[in-house]
Amino acid sequence: MEDLARERAETTFDVEAMKIIWAGGRQAFELQHKLASIVANDPVFRKDNKPNMTRKELFIGGIRKAAHCRELALELGLSEDDARTLRTLRGEKAYDDLHWNMFIPVLRTQATAEQQKKWLPLATSMSVIGCYAQTEIGHGSNVQGLETTATFDPSTDEFILNSPTLTSTKWWPGGLGKVATHAIVHARLILDKDYGVHAFIVQIRSLEDHKPLRTITVGDIGQKFGNGGNNTVDNGFAQFNNTRIPRDNLLMRMAIVTKEGKYVRQNVPKQMLYGGMIAARQIILMEASMDLSHAVTIAVRYSAVRRQFSLDDGNREIQVLDYPTQQQKIFPLLASAYAFRFVGQWMESLYSEVMYQFENNNFSALAEIHACTSGLKALTTSVTADAIEKCRKACGGHGYLCASGLPELFAAYIPSCTYEGDNTLLFIQVGKFLVKTILNMKTSFRPQGTTQYLADLDLLTKKNCEVSDEDDWLSSNVILGAFKARAARLALSISRQILKFPNQDAGFEELSVNLVSVAQAHCQLIVLSKFIDKVHGAIPGLNVKKQLQLLCNTYGLSLVCEHVEDFLVTGYLTKRQANLARHQLRSLLSHVRPNAIALVDSFDHTDHYLGSVLGRYDGDVYTHLYMEALKDPFNNSAVTEGYKEYIEPIIKQRLQSSKL
Amino acid sequence: MEDLARERAETTFDVEAMKIIWAGGRQAFELQHKLASIVANDPVFRKDNKPNMTRKELFIGGIRKAAHCRELALELGLSEDDARTLRTLRGEKAYDDLHWNMFIPVLRTQATAEQQKKWLPLATSMSVIGCYAQTEIGHGSNVQGLETTATFDPSTDEFILNSPTLTSTKWWPGGLGKVATHAIVHARLILDKDYGVHAFIVQIRSLEDHKPLRTITVGDIGQKFGNGGNNTVDNGFAQFNNTRIPRDNLLMRMAIVTKEGKYVRQNVPKQMLYGGMIAARQIILMEASMDLSHAVTIAVRYSAVRRQFSLDDGNREIQVLDYPTQQQKIFPLLASAYAFRFVGQWMESLYSEVMYQFENNNFSALAEIHACTSGLKALTTSVTADAIEKCRKACGGHGYLCASGLPELFAAYIPSCTYEGDNTLLFIQVGKFLVKTILNMKTSFRPQGTTQYLADLDLLTKKNCEVSDEDDWLSSNVILGAFKARAARLALSISRQILKFPNQDAGFEELSVNLVSVAQAHCQLIVLSKFIDKVHGAIPGLNVKKQLQLLCNTYGLSLVCEHVEDFLVTGYLTKRQANLARHQLRSLLSHVRPNAIALVDSFDHTDHYLGSVLGRYDGDVYTHLYMEALKDPFNNSAVTEGYKEYIEPIIKQRLQSSKL
Repeated sequence: MEDLARERAETTFDVEAMKIIWAGGRQAFELQHKLASIVANDPVFRKDNKPNMTRKELFIGGIRKAAHCRELALELGLSEDDARTLRTLRGEKAYDDLHWNMFIPVLRTQATAEQQKKWLPLATSMSVIGCYAQTEIGHGSNVQGLETTATFDPSTDEFILNSPTLTSTKWWPGGLGKVATHAIVHARLILDKDYGVHAFIVQIRSLEDHKPLRTITVGDIGQKFGNGGNNTVDNGFAQFNNTRIPRDNLLMRMAIVTKEGKYVRQNVPKQMLYGGMIAARQIILMEASMDLSHAVTIAVRYSAVRRQFSLDDGNREIQVLDYPTQQQKIFPLLASAYAFRFVGQWMESLYSEVMYQFENNNFSALAEIHACTSGLKALTTSVTADAIEKCRKACGGHGYLCASGLPELFAAYIPSCTYEGDNTLLFIQVGKFLVKTILNMKTSFRPQGTTQYLADLDLLTKKNCEVSDEDDWLSSNVILGAFKARAARLALSISRQILKFPNQDAGFEELSVNLVSVAQAHCQLIVLSKFIDKVHGAIPGLNVKKQLQLLCNTYGLSLVCEHVEDFLVTGYLTKRQANLARHQLRSLLSHVRPNAIALVDSFDHTDHYLGSVLGRYDGDVYTHLYMEALKDPFNNSAVTEGYKEYIEPIIKQRLQSSKL
Repeated sequence: MEDLARERAETTFDVEAMKIIWAGGRQAFELQHKLASIVANDPVFRKDNKPNMTRKELFIGGIRKAAHCRELALELGLSEDDARTLRTLRGEKAYDDLHWNMFIPVLRTQATAEQQKKWLPLATSMSVIGCYAQTEIGHGSNVQGLETTATFDPSTDEFILNSPTLTSTKWWPGGLGKVATHAIVHARLILDKDYGVHAFIVQIRSLEDHKPLRTITVGDIGQKFGNGGNNTVDNGFAQFNNTRIPRDNLLMRMAIVTKEGKYVRQNVPKQMLYGGMIAARQIILMEASMDLSHAVTIAVRYSAVRRQFSLDDGNREIQVLDYPTQQQKIFPLLASAYAFRFVGQWMESLYSEVMYQFENNNFSALAEIHACTSGLKALTTSVTADAIEKCRKACGGHGYLCASGLPELFAAYIPSCTYEGDNTLLFIQVGKFLVKTILNMKTSFRPQGTTQYLADLDLLTKKNCEVSDEDDWLSSNVILGAFKARAARLALSISRQILKFPNQDAGFEELSVNLVSVAQAHCQLIVLSKFIDKVHGAIPGLNVKKQLQLLCNTYGLSLVCEHVEDFLVTGYLTKRQANLARHQLRSLLSHVRPNAIALVDSFDHTDHYLGSVLGRYDGDVYTHLYMEALKDPFNNSAVTEGYKEYIEPIIKQRLQSSKL
């Protein structure tokens, strides 16, 4: 316990100032801090008892917490964003996340003004509870392959929804299984012909008694990964059997269907469909920084408490955090947590900007922003999912206990790699976008936004790295230059190869593995550049800027070392320069070490939020591991249930006569 | 469903012959096949109901299955090895695994002949049930740091065991929590002074009524990762409070304590302690190949069933397994499953040889074998743990459902990265061993066994790769040469750097990250070389050898591409050669594709063993996913429990008056 106190006493920067940077401002910090302590002190939000709960208990606990959050939000008069923060802090997913993060944003982007006037008040007051029903059991990423149909019946001015096959069963939507009264259902619009997939508002359950509508077979898809995880959420299935909805329940911002059954495209680009996705992805990005910082806090604190081996015999064992292998595992993730936070903050402002442009029917930036948010979603969720497991492994055996909080965190987090766009497919899309950007540049097209650097393609492909000693790697321009050159060169190489194929699609297919690589390179560049922008801004507080600079360099150089083959193969780095990067990284990690505890304290996570005996603020790990074990109902009896039937016959050699 | 049948019809090699290679011979195949179908058809071994079980139900189910296995083993007259196969096939860990895989092997290596005569019959008849109690809550890898004491009392000719601190609490031993009657306890031997850690046999529970002994506080350490996972095992804790055991319960092969309390070292090297570890690691290696092949079977089959996107509009969607990104994810793992199997078979024979040498008090090969088995344990478990999660992600969203079997497999598997030696620490040890081997070569020392190639250090560091076109990479010698050169060059580079440090230990500490890399390189070389040996041996059956050659090349080249920076930085490969490797790998993967289903069928896993709707032999995935969901007790009522309390007040806007 004294270890953490000592480390805190030796901190060299202003932790309170860093907390404010992390939170995104003083006001945000104060609100988050207040909400976090409300949650931590309210027994309804207790979660240490979850590992022993059944599925049903988990779910009931989840809807109870959701109701309590709603009540608190009303009592405290929280804005939508602040209520979302409250839900994040409760540390457990429920149907309401889907209602606010999917259902409502889709209404806002895909419903007409008139439709919004009708539905938004119902949705924001939660008089209806919505979910988002796109995925089918046999169809995930390929939205155009969905099979559910919505056939217009002009005689009643209604659409008739049907699930024509088993594979068309709606499958996965969170909130659909047991709670949602309404769903945004993606279905093929059938008029005189099949107009492809459109979104419809479909009532699922009665607003009176909550019974499912007669024409809809609906339920929960069963147990998911983990003890707790997302088992608090009622991911559901639904089949429609001539379910009728009013014509006006088609979301009509993109296209109108008239009373006569005529299809009229509206003057908004098709990408408008992505509006809801961008909203969801921006939230996913902030969650990535939260969950990554969550795992890192546990790993860093426990690595400072845990001791192993002594260099000189007889001395006290060494804190595990002092080992280079441990630092190499954890500190790049610590730096990534900050990096993701700042790119998330940047995207928050970008999203507001985009929404403003949408409202003014300006969609010019959409393709680039869509690619950017897709890629950042894929990058941050992949890294975070892997990082949680790395942190768990870095905690040794105890990380495997539910009491460590890490199994629960992992189980809850990993679906983010799959939902809202499978990460591999997203990377391929981003890769294609980059290659097409380069191919289009020949026709006087100027790359915009996060792809602007591609305008300097010539320079980036000709000029190699100029690093000549270790410290040269400390310059932001040097690291940034390396990432730009890497991404540009990889993209250029693919765009040249593509031209050799008889058609572009076949080329993209064959080179899909390369597309993933270039997309990762591009997205890492975005994250790094936003981190650098942050560091170059005004940052108050003693040595706060210095610490952020250190983390920013750690982030960049750890990626250079992790992907060094890209830099070598593209000819941008020499072997010597790569080696200098490795040496500089080693040095950076050792400089992160003295303030590591303070850098995770700066996330301001409560013990409740962490839900981890290993990550306790006070470091009193072993006492509490032991206490948790004693609490387990499994320890109530001295001789276990089942002894007489299944153990005694073995020991007393009476097995063959027993006939189990 | 027709997809898998069609793929099977198009197989170009003799699957039955491959099954025999995988099993390790016809006899082994027939036995495994027989045992697998016994297990699959016996309702006691049912496991599809596990996700909904509580911890206690899981445990009781586990001891029931263990008793049933014991009964079957006696009825069928199975040998120890065959009984182990039966336990593997039941697909669930229990206390008996620890009894047979840890307790008994340690008796065999560390007990004297006389002690073995007393204890082995008790243990092999299961009249006592043993566990292995080394780890303490505050001490894992550093065995010398254990705190439990065993103080000799000459007046009664007994040792008195004590847990002097909270951190000395024994923690983690499987079987200790609820079942074991005896434990091999590691404790500091205290006579006139502290002689360091030794192993003692300590009775934990009464053989009459199973009650814990009065002086021992014992229990279960609580819930672990996953729904099922290892929650069938009673990992336990224990504290000793003046627990007395006879002097003769010290395992005395290494050292004797006389009646007078005199410590007498025996003429066996200290590494003898590793005997039990080698046994355990050999088993771990075979488990890695089983669990990896388990995950790969699910991913390959489901990727052939699942379809996504069509190249030309309107056509049927493409099997996901046809996508290069999917092949790149899964096929190297398929190849690794075969690779691990063959290195496991090799180690099985190596282990028998070692045991023979032990019996003849010949320990000369021990250091090298210890390093080899340590490294292979670390390599195969790391790869397998990551691979299970990769396979899960490759299954898209459905991989997240318990019905996919993958969450359970992951949760059950991952502790193997930590137990029996943390993988990072094992790699560091192996790295040190390699560097020391090189440093010792200067004094006419000849490297032996798997390190023999280091004798050619000069040649390996001077001669670079001679590949000049893609097909050159298909030669076993070329790939093997590359792996030898890589490992040798990395090891040589570290051994040169080490000499610059004031002392070796400080050097090893600072270069620990590099030690991990060189150890991985060395272990990959071992696995590859055993795969090549296998392929070069006699292999009956139509095209079986050809398929294995293809997989062997895939294994080698996928590693070259994954670790290409090692090959580039050491100067062994040029950028062009690396590029040729990548092209050749792409071609190999496309050649694996047509027989992929048959290659996983060759593992001969039953649907029971797989426990996965996605991996079903018949490919009827979606029907059974749906049926599994309907079976979930959560779907019994139309309106969910908790509706009145937690949902209705929200929808009907009565929240603020309700006071939840």
